[in-house]
Amino acid sequence: MSDHSASSTIVTAAMLAIGDELLSGRTKDKNIGHLADMLTLSAIDLKEVRIVADEEEAIVEALNALRARYDYVFTSGGIGPTHDDITADSVSKAFGVECIYDSEAMTLLGEMYKRREMEFTPARQRMARMPEGAKHIANPVSTAPGFIIGNVYVMAGVPQVFQAMVDNVLPTLRSGAKMLSRAVSCPYGEGDIGTLLADIQKAHPETSIGSYPRFDGKKFSTEIVVRGRDAEAMDAAAEAVSEMIAGLDRKGISANPTADA
Amino acid sequence: MSDHSASSTIVTAAMLAIGDELLSGRTKDKNIGHLADMLTLSAIDLKEVRIVADEEEAIVEALNALRARYDYVFTSGGIGPTHDDITADSVSKAFGVECIYDSEAMTLLGEMYKRREMEFTPARQRMARMPEGAKHIANPVSTAPGFIIGNVYVMAGVPQVFQAMVDNVLPTLRSGAKMLSRAVSCPYGEGDIGTLLADIQKAHPETSIGSYPRFDGKKFSTEIVVRGRDAEAMDAAAEAVSEMIAGLDRKGISANPTADA
Repeated sequence: MSDHSASSTIVTAAMLAIGDELLSGRTKDKNIGHLADMLTLSAIDLKEVRIVADEEEAIVEALNALRARYDYVFTSGGIGPTHDDITADSVSKAFGVECIYDSEAMTLLGEMYKRREMEFTPARQRMARMPEGAKHIANPVSTAPGFIIGNVYVMAGVPQVFQAMVDNVLPTLRSGAKMLSRAVSCPYGEGDIGTLLADIQKAHPETSIGSYPRFDGKKFSTEIVVRGRDAEAMDAAAEAVSEMIAGLDRKGISANPTADA
Repeated sequence: MSDHSASSTIVTAAMLAIGDELLSGRTKDKNIGHLADMLTLSAIDLKEVRIVADEEEAIVEALNALRARYDYVFTSGGIGPTHDDITADSVSKAFGVECIYDSEAMTLLGEMYKRREMEFTPARQRMARMPEGAKHIANPVSTAPGFIIGNVYVMAGVPQVFQAMVDNVLPTLRSGAKMLSRAVSCPYGEGDIGTLLADIQKAHPETSIGSYPRFDGKKFSTEIVVRGRDAEAMDAAAEAVSEMIAGLDRKGISANPTADA
């Protein structure tokens, strides 16, 4: 009986990564590892991951298998404006509902393109498609929303957008305690900080430290993001990152001398 | 009839990555992307990937689903010496055969540990376990072999060992008609090209045209990849893509003003 109450606190999840480019090797997935980190910090058990191609039958079958079995399913990819972005249609089919141009999404996107004096083309309008009745997942990076239907969370494949959507979604999940984050801007490329950052991660196991390379056409820099559920632990890790950067500054390592990919 | 001979040259594969550490985020998988690259070069279509935990039921179920559906299945992980390395037992169970201490593997490992003046402990002997009748996959890095049973190739999770095993295995596989690809770099975001690209895809049905958004922190661009088994068809589609970009250039559309997801 006490076992029952214990087991009822276990929340399970699966991820479905969608995209031909992941299976051809052209794109190396970065979202699976990130979601795994975030779910672990949220005390949600990621139990299974599948990667399938941009093929309706494959998406529908995998999604129906996973959503029946786990508390939550998170998808990545296939919600952009091009012809091979068929995730919204496939998810609608899996749920047996119509895929519509969501009016709220049409407004959001229409206003964004108007503000930027760009045409809201039929291709761009595809990004407003979602299953009828779905709820939005806000996209603070590039506006086009993800969506939620049933226990399925449909998110973008571009890592920056995927991560922002995950940040928005996690606090709403059962047993998903609020995830805090602090970003530290770093003038050094990943090749200069990789080993040091790995040591910091090891010393701060309650946090998840991500590094995101930036390239301005000439040189690499890095945005380092520390995430965690405990504010003190997160601040301590962010502080260690800042000290690492100050240490490199003192050593006189010239920022960005080379191209670390 | 000519269709039949064409379709018979398509060879399919799936990958099953096994390991709790991949699902917790503690280890970031590097084997999926590598195998994807290698299979693409070998003209074998990787159609699906699954990641499951070190749990017998999950491994057996995924393996049986994948080996029934695809020509080849490649697994990674769970063949080391610790208690949670249960891949050999699980694969044996999936095939309904006994999991034995393979005598040839026992000899190989016994000699290696003797040479290093290390004890060949019961834990290390676990690495000689495999389904009865399985064939070895040589491990030039750390001796303990992978194995082949039916259409399933069982390999290590450590990337250096996995890669060496893949190198050993690839030349023995039946390979498909080589998939050709051409990448075209496009300074426009997906929203600018989506509709045009869909038209090109329609006009070139023998090819598969994928578009992969890139985001450098400020602006989106696109890599467009045309794939096909026929060089002429692929070149014609790639040419059409280049013409599309040139057309947008002439229209004076400013590249990348905004963020299309």
